[in-house]
Amino acid sequence: MSISTSPSSVLTPKLHYDNDEDVALLTAVNDEHGGVIVEMKDPMNSTDFSISLRTSLTNWKKQGIKGVWIKLPIKLANLIEVVVQEGFLYHHAEPTYLMLVRWLPNTQHTIPANASHRVGIGAFVMNDNREILVVQEKNGILRGSGFWKFPTGVVEQAEDIHVGAIREVKEETGIDTEFVEVLAFRQTHKSFFEKSDFFFLCLLRPLSFDIHIQELEIEAAKWMPIEEYAEQPFVQNHELLKYILDVCLAKIDKGYSGFSPVQISSTFFGQEREDCLFLNSRDFNH
Amino acid sequence: MSISTSPSSVLTPKLHYDNDEDVALLTAVNDEHGGVIVEMKDPMNSTDFSISLRTSLTNWKKQGIKGVWIKLPIKLANLIEVVVQEGFLYHHAEPTYLMLVRWLPNTQHTIPANASHRVGIGAFVMNDNREILVVQEKNGILRGSGFWKFPTGVVEQAEDIHVGAIREVKEETGIDTEFVEVLAFRQTHKSFFEKSDFFFLCLLRPLSFDIHIQELEIEAAKWMPIEEYAEQPFVQNHELLKYILDVCLAKIDKGYSGFSPVQISSTFFGQEREDCLFLNSRDFNH
Repeated sequence: MSISTSPSSVLTPKLHYDNDEDVALLTAVNDEHGGVIVEMKDPMNSTDFSISLRTSLTNWKKQGIKGVWIKLPIKLANLIEVVVQEGFLYHHAEPTYLMLVRWLPNTQHTIPANASHRVGIGAFVMNDNREILVVQEKNGILRGSGFWKFPTGVVEQAEDIHVGAIREVKEETGIDTEFVEVLAFRQTHKSFFEKSDFFFLCLLRPLSFDIHIQELEIEAAKWMPIEEYAEQPFVQNHELLKYILDVCLAKIDKGYSGFSPVQISSTFFGQEREDCLFLNSRDFNH
Repeated sequence: MSISTSPSSVLTPKLHYDNDEDVALLTAVNDEHGGVIVEMKDPMNSTDFSISLRTSLTNWKKQGIKGVWIKLPIKLANLIEVVVQEGFLYHHAEPTYLMLVRWLPNTQHTIPANASHRVGIGAFVMNDNREILVVQEKNGILRGSGFWKFPTGVVEQAEDIHVGAIREVKEETGIDTEFVEVLAFRQTHKSFFEKSDFFFLCLLRPLSFDIHIQELEIEAAKWMPIEEYAEQPFVQNHELLKYILDVCLAKIDKGYSGFSPVQISSTFFGQEREDCLFLNSRDFNH
């Protein structure tokens, strides 16, 4: 179950007129799954919009259209109620737009699910003296606890895990790194309202050593002997943190193998695609 | 950067009256990050709501509240415009509600990001005769192509990867399985509007062998010799599918090690939490 929409195929909708009824129809572009996408851009009063939407829906039904997507920028919030009254549900929202969708046929819908997971990283960065890079945060639940932790952060939309890990370490501590491996990952549910999240434990190799902290989020950062990190009561008393530390120790002392990224180009129905596949490279000879 | 809200702390908001001004204030509950959450449930006309919201915002500012969250069920779509006029942005939406948020202080916000990734699985299931479980789908871009593929599916919100993989194989083919390992995973961007996705390649061991296909989504399913799968032109010509197949072959013939799930209970500030950590168990002795 997947859908892809190339941004270039989404044109600015205009109104065009249905000669028979003299009603302005909404202009839509076809998606690749028998549906249409309407991207509203210009202000419209809700009465005119309501008539246009209703007439358009009648036409789309005649044409056998399946899913109808309507994207409303936040400045057109006045039109949401009209769309909802026509039987649409919300699909997803970003800060400045809301996407609504309605399945027209009398069949079970195949509308793809909304994004369900947030993605975070934790960075294990060790120098040649077995000192690891640790921080104390200014905000969050650990603030003021005195606990030294791995740098962590949220991977941005459309950002690869390894790129996000390097960026977060650089932002929080000023340290340049290169990415080595995902050592393990954790899945958790209901971490934020109803959403789930992934946390990828990443091994990075330091390329610089002078720390410059980011004042907004970071209280302090330093290189700390790994044994000293391990002795912190918070690590000792927290089963997951102990596991994470033991995975890191297995890596540096016992040849533990994680997953490293391989960039792969494929051609899929004439379209070039770049994928990043994480796998156990040590066990794999392609 | 994380936030957690336990559903039990979100009470039904009622209006209460500010004696000085005789205006009904919105009832909110505090979150764990210095903010408040308003969960609207009952219909209200937009004029009254506008006055209540404005007065409430003035009070919250006085109290030093940071983030203000307003959750509107779809039946209250008429109130969205009022909230937007007070400077709120959308945060996320699910089919029947919209969440809006505004950061009140004059500081950089620490509002957590919306979910950015969808999560899918592909199931590698092989019997003792080196035959793998393959399907042809009724819908999607491969429909009618004659290509036999691994069962795939979307992991549901709040569902563990390994649980989702077992469920999808059962739904599509009727085969019972037990989960063994994540062999590799792929990250892709802009797969669906602006969202990214993860695809986890999962090894499952079959526990039953009689196929019963799901009529709605699956055209056909069968056990196919792995060599025959590999010889399909679509696999031969698609770099990513070749990689995925080679990882599976490395697993069955060369002792390749993936990540297997470990369930971990931790206590975090008095709250019991269940996490699922995926790691290279073969290389790890806890």
